[in-house]
Amino acid sequence: MGKLRVGIAGLGTVGGGLLKLFADPRSRLNEKLELVAVSARDRSRDRGVDIGGYRWFDDPVELAAQRDIDVVVELIGGSDGPAKRAVETALQRGAHVVSANKALVAVHGLALAETSEASGGKLLFEAAVGGGVPMVKALKESVAGCRASAVAGILNGTCNYILTEMEASGRSFESVLADAQRLGYAEADPTMDVGGFDAAHKLTILSAIAFGTLPDFEHVRIEGVERVSLTDIRMAGKLGFRIKLVAKGALNDGAVEMHVRPALLAFDHPLASIGGSLNALVVDAEPAGQLTFIGRGAGAGPTASSVASDLIDLAEERAGHAFGRPLAQLSSAPRATPAERGRYYLRLMVADRPGVVAAISDRLAHEGISIESFLQMPAPEGPVVPIVLTTQTCARTAVEAAVSAMQALDVVVEAPYVMPVEVSGAHWGAA
Amino acid sequence: MGKLRVGIAGLGTVGGGLLKLFADPRSRLNEKLELVAVSARDRSRDRGVDIGGYRWFDDPVELAAQRDIDVVVELIGGSDGPAKRAVETALQRGAHVVSANKALVAVHGLALAETSEASGGKLLFEAAVGGGVPMVKALKESVAGCRASAVAGILNGTCNYILTEMEASGRSFESVLADAQRLGYAEADPTMDVGGFDAAHKLTILSAIAFGTLPDFEHVRIEGVERVSLTDIRMAGKLGFRIKLVAKGALNDGAVEMHVRPALLAFDHPLASIGGSLNALVVDAEPAGQLTFIGRGAGAGPTASSVASDLIDLAEERAGHAFGRPLAQLSSAPRATPAERGRYYLRLMVADRPGVVAAISDRLAHEGISIESFLQMPAPEGPVVPIVLTTQTCARTAVEAAVSAMQALDVVVEAPYVMPVEVSGAHWGAA
Repeated sequence: MGKLRVGIAGLGTVGGGLLKLFADPRSRLNEKLELVAVSARDRSRDRGVDIGGYRWFDDPVELAAQRDIDVVVELIGGSDGPAKRAVETALQRGAHVVSANKALVAVHGLALAETSEASGGKLLFEAAVGGGVPMVKALKESVAGCRASAVAGILNGTCNYILTEMEASGRSFESVLADAQRLGYAEADPTMDVGGFDAAHKLTILSAIAFGTLPDFEHVRIEGVERVSLTDIRMAGKLGFRIKLVAKGALNDGAVEMHVRPALLAFDHPLASIGGSLNALVVDAEPAGQLTFIGRGAGAGPTASSVASDLIDLAEERAGHAFGRPLAQLSSAPRATPAERGRYYLRLMVADRPGVVAAISDRLAHEGISIESFLQMPAPEGPVVPIVLTTQTCARTAVEAAVSAMQALDVVVEAPYVMPVEVSGAHWGAA
Repeated sequence: MGKLRVGIAGLGTVGGGLLKLFADPRSRLNEKLELVAVSARDRSRDRGVDIGGYRWFDDPVELAAQRDIDVVVELIGGSDGPAKRAVETALQRGAHVVSANKALVAVHGLALAETSEASGGKLLFEAAVGGGVPMVKALKESVAGCRASAVAGILNGTCNYILTEMEASGRSFESVLADAQRLGYAEADPTMDVGGFDAAHKLTILSAIAFGTLPDFEHVRIEGVERVSLTDIRMAGKLGFRIKLVAKGALNDGAVEMHVRPALLAFDHPLASIGGSLNALVVDAEPAGQLTFIGRGAGAGPTASSVASDLIDLAEERAGHAFGRPLAQLSSAPRATPAERGRYYLRLMVADRPGVVAAISDRLAHEGISIESFLQMPAPEGPVVPIVLTTQTCARTAVEAAVSAMQALDVVVEAPYVMPVEVSGAHWGAA
């Protein structure tokens, strides 16, 4: 069998990393694959690797249509537009696709997998989730003999970098974000990252594979990190918790619940020590028990290495179904009703007046919620002070009712901020 | 295609776990595989699952020889004897083998892989290393596009349980070991575990796959945990370190070095927080960066789940080469000369007399070794006191020379105990 002929659409950071791997004569990529064509917006940009020996396409869709290209690597990004058209074009003619595009797979993965099944062209996307960490393969193949009940991950390096830096340096969210943007760790428009959407795309993919359900991005409840303040990080720390943006999918009584949200993790939670731009995934599966995977979540090298492992799987003819099993076997699990119970963290900004704590405690007691811990910090400026508390286990709906009642108090000067205390395992928030 | 017909040789803990998986109608195992035969020493033992529907063989080799059995699962254990004969018998006739037997694969893996290549019967052994943690597949497939420079793991749950319990409970090695034996966590003859041999078998397998070299068990330098004392654990803790049995393979300048030995890990080392019976592997690979895999290292469920993932790989026809590539591509890397440099921990039992510290310091200075930290603990009993120290970076040979000189001092009452300070990454001990 001849070598598989590869075309790369998109030569940004990851594409550049992949070019370097193909340029390395010792790389195993070159044993059974051959890079023949590339496409990008700017042909002349210096990528540190000579691309003169590869066929050039201005249009990635044209590259994807070439009948002598066996594998199209899509590194363009975006859930629609040229990335989607290029992937569709390749799959429709039976070519294989390796994509690092989480938005595309999360939003259109089902339709693309249908095209893949119809034509026989494989669709692989290890690089779409967790950078260099083999989360997709682990769920598709290593946990294949198990029943997964929960996946929980730190899947967005930008948010994790910001939260880690805030804790380490004592600087505000805005200040750290501005630095991250200057250093190139965060996009000029950071909404996809800090708003939780990127993590939600990745969670959609992981949940579908872990639970054998259809990918269902619309179903993820998404909350970003924008409201996490330095006060929250410090107060949570005093109570024994670290704040992380947690992406979690759980299967409870056959229903799937997916959340991306800031949460408090006890210091010994397996995700609590994942700092900076690292990514991690914790999988609860029976009978394997809890498995944890940690590594670099982004960047040229890690992401290109995941693309390379998909390419080698294709070359070794061991690539399977896009979501780990035939689409006909994926179920459309009912969406879980939000009957969540657990422990919660509340931060209130209140007027520094006598009786405030009594008024707040009263609103909680009225909903049957017991306070587990309580912290008041002297406010350095002005008459408004932060109060934080954690509840004992209670219903989320009770917390929401109490918070509504608190907002009606004139001493509560802004909407209370609520975060769950996340525990390890399938049961939502059941600390 | 019909279902693959499976025979299980060995129905101990792991075999029992696998029987339960096959008995679960929801298990994906049953989609493409069918359990048809079993073999064990005792047919009548209650395993919680009815085995009356499976063909019974007193002799595992006879089971392995049955021409209608497509896959033989070897769960007998031991590097020789019936396990080896059963695996050879199956592979020779072109049947596939799934084995959880690290001793067999470490010692005879090369010969078995040759038989496998000759006959076309696949040889898989995810369950031989790391219990339920997919270390073998990660190295064979996910890191396939990378160049691994080091693997470091906690691969023996018994040793890790003992060291964790000693630290947590303040009990001695002997006391914790006796408890572990009573609870069934340690064998009656614990030599394979506490002597480091089990970890060395596993390291042999992981190093071969990671570095693309021939498995070479004889080459592992092995030191067990028998000499680790409560004093060491406490003193190391005061200096900011935790003691773990670390199995490490590294590729330096094309030469492979493999060690199993107790070592000091700084509290923030990725392996330092792996407690109890957990197993973990840290892989340094370019360009993926550092990857960490954590999970349950032993037990019926985790190990059976790894057997199941191998069985599903066979059923999905995606099983590859035993060591990740054709044997002809595995190199026999030169063994590294022990030119190790690093930081070291020394524990000396000395007579409590003036001038002792000066004499010890002098022997270190004579070899050009600088002391980084020094701790003397009041001995509750008798005239002998423990002194521990850590060195700055120096040559291992210099430490050995200094230790020899110290032993000649009449105030040093027993052979000094030396452990390396292990750092993350390929370079041995270069802290």
